[in-house]
Amino acid sequence: MDRDGRPFDLPAPDELDTPCLVVDLDRLEANLAGMAGLLAGRGVALRPHAKTHKSVAVASRQLAAGAAGLTVASLGEAEAFADAGCDDLFVAYPLWAAGPKAARLRALQERARLSVGVDSAAAAAVLGAAVAGSGRPLQVLVEVDAGLHRTGVPPGRAATVADAAGRAGLEVVGAFAHAGHAYLGPDRVAAAADDERRALEVAQSALLRAGHEAWVLSAGSTPTAARSAAGAVTEERPGTYAFGDRQQVGLGSCRRDQVALVVAATVVSAAAPGQVVLDAGSKALSMDRPAWLAGHGELPAYPGVTPARLSEEHAVCEVAPGAAAPPPGEVVAVVPNHVCPVVNLFDQLLVVRAGQLVDAWPVDARGRST
Amino acid sequence: MDRDGRPFDLPAPDELDTPCLVVDLDRLEANLAGMAGLLAGRGVALRPHAKTHKSVAVASRQLAAGAAGLTVASLGEAEAFADAGCDDLFVAYPLWAAGPKAARLRALQERARLSVGVDSAAAAAVLGAAVAGSGRPLQVLVEVDAGLHRTGVPPGRAATVADAAGRAGLEVVGAFAHAGHAYLGPDRVAAAADDERRALEVAQSALLRAGHEAWVLSAGSTPTAARSAAGAVTEERPGTYAFGDRQQVGLGSCRRDQVALVVAATVVSAAAPGQVVLDAGSKALSMDRPAWLAGHGELPAYPGVTPARLSEEHAVCEVAPGAAAPPPGEVVAVVPNHVCPVVNLFDQLLVVRAGQLVDAWPVDARGRST
Repeated sequence: MDRDGRPFDLPAPDELDTPCLVVDLDRLEANLAGMAGLLAGRGVALRPHAKTHKSVAVASRQLAAGAAGLTVASLGEAEAFADAGCDDLFVAYPLWAAGPKAARLRALQERARLSVGVDSAAAAAVLGAAVAGSGRPLQVLVEVDAGLHRTGVPPGRAATVADAAGRAGLEVVGAFAHAGHAYLGPDRVAAAADDERRALEVAQSALLRAGHEAWVLSAGSTPTAARSAAGAVTEERPGTYAFGDRQQVGLGSCRRDQVALVVAATVVSAAAPGQVVLDAGSKALSMDRPAWLAGHGELPAYPGVTPARLSEEHAVCEVAPGAAAPPPGEVVAVVPNHVCPVVNLFDQLLVVRAGQLVDAWPVDARGRST
Repeated sequence: MDRDGRPFDLPAPDELDTPCLVVDLDRLEANLAGMAGLLAGRGVALRPHAKTHKSVAVASRQLAAGAAGLTVASLGEAEAFADAGCDDLFVAYPLWAAGPKAARLRALQERARLSVGVDSAAAAAVLGAAVAGSGRPLQVLVEVDAGLHRTGVPPGRAATVADAAGRAGLEVVGAFAHAGHAYLGPDRVAAAADDERRALEVAQSALLRAGHEAWVLSAGSTPTAARSAAGAVTEERPGTYAFGDRQQVGLGSCRRDQVALVVAATVVSAAAPGQVVLDAGSKALSMDRPAWLAGHGELPAYPGVTPARLSEEHAVCEVAPGAAAPPPGEVVAVVPNHVCPVVNLFDQLLVVRAGQLVDAWPVDARGRST
């Protein structure tokens, strides 16, 4: 493992009740400014995905740094940010707005600048019924599949969904895509960014040809946002760039010395030979791990120590022969593989600057997946 | 896949805001009574692990059904249950009681019948310092390794840790083990249960020989509790038995028609051929998956539909050729692979009896991993 950057300084161990999340404010601010500057230079709007941090404090800094609004993944996240006054919101998800979600969607639309995703005529009809009779039409973006094969129609068929949306009384404003196949490995990022751009260009043509609007063409992920050529793309939705994580380092989307969040953990046992055990298990580090990464995170200060097995409250770390390992009682920083599910496990972010604890931010939208 | 049991009935879809957790009260109560009866018949105390449910409502039912007290995994869980009056608590974890944990441990000891785990002389010294001068000694159980090789000393060396605990002013009351290697597969359960019992018998001999007490010999996991012969074991600490899950069905610890908790999810997209997408991703189902199980859960009503890929808010389910699949908008029940990390993602449990919503219980200790 190369070590091109050192971890940021943690506060004194007796200020930390582990496991806990620690955010370095200088690095966070630099990450926010960096992405904002990159996209401004390209003439593309930044609508960061708030599912990464679920934090009003981070969202406010993104908006202050020039973001056009926020992306969220659920109505619950949208409500949490609207409650705090961050009310220009795109729900980048094919919402099925039936049952309790119908009334929630309608209430939210009345107090926020809201747009939502749609990828079928059936979902469009349900969305239309949910907001029927409200003061203004609900704005929707047609989701198109850029190669991830998760949700979204083939880009050439965007107009079919848009037609249905129009019939349901919705206002089609464009299309969105997520080239999540960029996460399949560092060698996939450039092609995925191209796929995303091309899918949106095909969708744009299809929409315009059928007489729809297409003034929003929204792409989004941290690896593709950092590398894509603009083309027809009008907006990017990166999320993880705020904090970075081990996966983003591996994908080349950030350097190690830009990672702005770590899980602080204590060595609680070294009873078995060749290993140490941390008090951060799957309920702190999550089990997310791309197939191309071994281990459940890394310890910047101990490159020979790898979290090899997680149970709920334990990380069993293998110690390479001859490698330095932290003794029982030491508080160590762990860079998680994927920061988004990790933040969703905690209620607060401890904020440090130059190793001093300066704030604690609530994870306002934690668990708001509904 | 065999289908030896049908799922319990969910409430009407418009009563559910998905993704959400639904607990069947009849099945839960039967599971609690079943384990209590099994262990009472064997003359072994039941101290259920509350990390599974993190819920005072479930814990109260366990205590009412005859449990001797609760097991927890962290000080935070212990505090949450003590706050609710469930105050006979064993922290089955090698606590490192430094920093903020020292004061918390001491405060908790003053208001609860508390015991904690210890697996090193160093941790014993830290525990002793944390509670020095308090009115009564802190009770500890020496953790011994029954073959999982996570935490715990070899059983024959239990007295070394006990000696250190005695010097630190702690009261040694016995030993505990967790044969988590039972989860490596159905063919491992019986041997793991034997390992656990034998490890505790060896620890008992070592402790008694060195002049220590050993009146608590605590074993614990749902698969081993269901199958072990008592031997010297005085107490079992199963957790998952309350709800069951797909992994427990696979291990033979419960039947499909005993699974008492499901994730209710809505089909939000069927845009890509051969699959349907649910609104329950890794932030609802977790990524926990034993190596011997394919997929991230199962849909009892649709055996040909498998959650094959999770992203944070999506489950991409493969539909076997010719198999029935739920249409967009349908609310389906998903049995998760491992229920414990799933419950920790949600703030409440919806409770049903005969398909009628009868209550909602908070997940009181959600996120209390510290």
